[in-house]
Amino acid sequence: MQENNKTRAVVLLSGGLDSTTALAWASLKQDWDCYTIAFDYGQRHRIELEASAQVAQVFKSKRHQVIAVDLQAIGGSALTSDIDVPKDMQDAAGIPATYVPARNLIFLSLAAAFAETVGANKLVIGANIVDYSGYPDCRPDFLTAFTRAADLGTKVGVQAGGFEVVAPLIKLSKAEIIQLGLSLGVDYAMTRSCYDPDAAGQPCGHCDSCHFRLQGFAEIKQQDPLLSS
Amino acid sequence: MQENNKTRAVVLLSGGLDSTTALAWASLKQDWDCYTIAFDYGQRHRIELEASAQVAQVFKSKRHQVIAVDLQAIGGSALTSDIDVPKDMQDAAGIPATYVPARNLIFLSLAAAFAETVGANKLVIGANIVDYSGYPDCRPDFLTAFTRAADLGTKVGVQAGGFEVVAPLIKLSKAEIIQLGLSLGVDYAMTRSCYDPDAAGQPCGHCDSCHFRLQGFAEIKQQDPLLSS
Repeated sequence: MQENNKTRAVVLLSGGLDSTTALAWASLKQDWDCYTIAFDYGQRHRIELEASAQVAQVFKSKRHQVIAVDLQAIGGSALTSDIDVPKDMQDAAGIPATYVPARNLIFLSLAAAFAETVGANKLVIGANIVDYSGYPDCRPDFLTAFTRAADLGTKVGVQAGGFEVVAPLIKLSKAEIIQLGLSLGVDYAMTRSCYDPDAAGQPCGHCDSCHFRLQGFAEIKQQDPLLSS
Repeated sequence: MQENNKTRAVVLLSGGLDSTTALAWASLKQDWDCYTIAFDYGQRHRIELEASAQVAQVFKSKRHQVIAVDLQAIGGSALTSDIDVPKDMQDAAGIPATYVPARNLIFLSLAAAFAETVGANKLVIGANIVDYSGYPDCRPDFLTAFTRAADLGTKVGVQAGGFEVVAPLIKLSKAEIIQLGLSLGVDYAMTRSCYDPDAAGQPCGHCDSCHFRLQGFAEIKQQDPLLSS
């Protein structure tokens, strides 16, 4: 057993389809020791925090850390404020209403701090530009610029070789992401994607996130186990 | 009155000597409409949050926003964890124990989110490299890299001309910062700098922050009004 020599990674884990697949990839395909981080940021879809904890356990996260950060106080997003979550893809042009101001900038910054305390250099994020091209903070250019800022502004950057932001899903379609996850044994019944679930946590079936998830499963002619569970 | 045409800035306001001076500069010398942001991050020196709210009021902050972000859960710093705050400058080499992992990266990210919702492009920070050269996240290179990441990862960057991070104190000595503040009428009795105050909020007089503050006032032959108040 030389577990201590294994590469360590912090995985941003919302408990959704993408981040769960990214964790499976990092843990099973890369064989990295994974530390998971989730954010309690005042999101409507808080059920994802339960999903996140369950997924972390299944993929043997070395430590699952939930960080409370009050983005609701800042507002400006359909995911944290009184703005309605758009349904049925009515307005797909530009930056979606579900964009949360500077979310990945904030989440990656907190992940970098966590990585520093657990001795990890890799930050794994399920960012994707195929389905959600409207989110600026999912683009490769942003991830590169973030890495540079983190390297210049942290102890890991100055003293420990710097960070690597790894985005294994960045150019995959939703169908390809699901195929990757299924090939790694991911049980998607555990994951939660809906931006606007009902009180029982059931997906609305109409927000962008539900739309892409349904389309992804349909493309590969699979049933979403979340809907049949 | 054309107040709505005034430049808007978000000022990171800890309630300490530096950030208070930066706010005075932005508000009185630049005549910007200032929105202030403070962070409740599990710091030992929570009295700074009260100072911050008072300073915000004195300098007519348009909105003072306290954001809760649980950095104590991440740990790794004398300011949030069980590590002792170093006294009497025993170990000034390298990165100090009072370094908080990725703090300015996290705080600037949250400030960028706040700026986005209030329509501000400028982020004002009291970062300084003269006294605290050990903190990587106070260096100009970091601030430049952060600006680039924020521009690529936010709506302001993509649609509204981008951010400017302004660090008016970056190359000033503590004495010069105090002189600037006094010339703008800052009452330093309001501000709190100590990393490790007692239960009544009184400064310890021995941590790095107290040390530089005392030295700064001594250099310009002034009495720190906090100590005589």
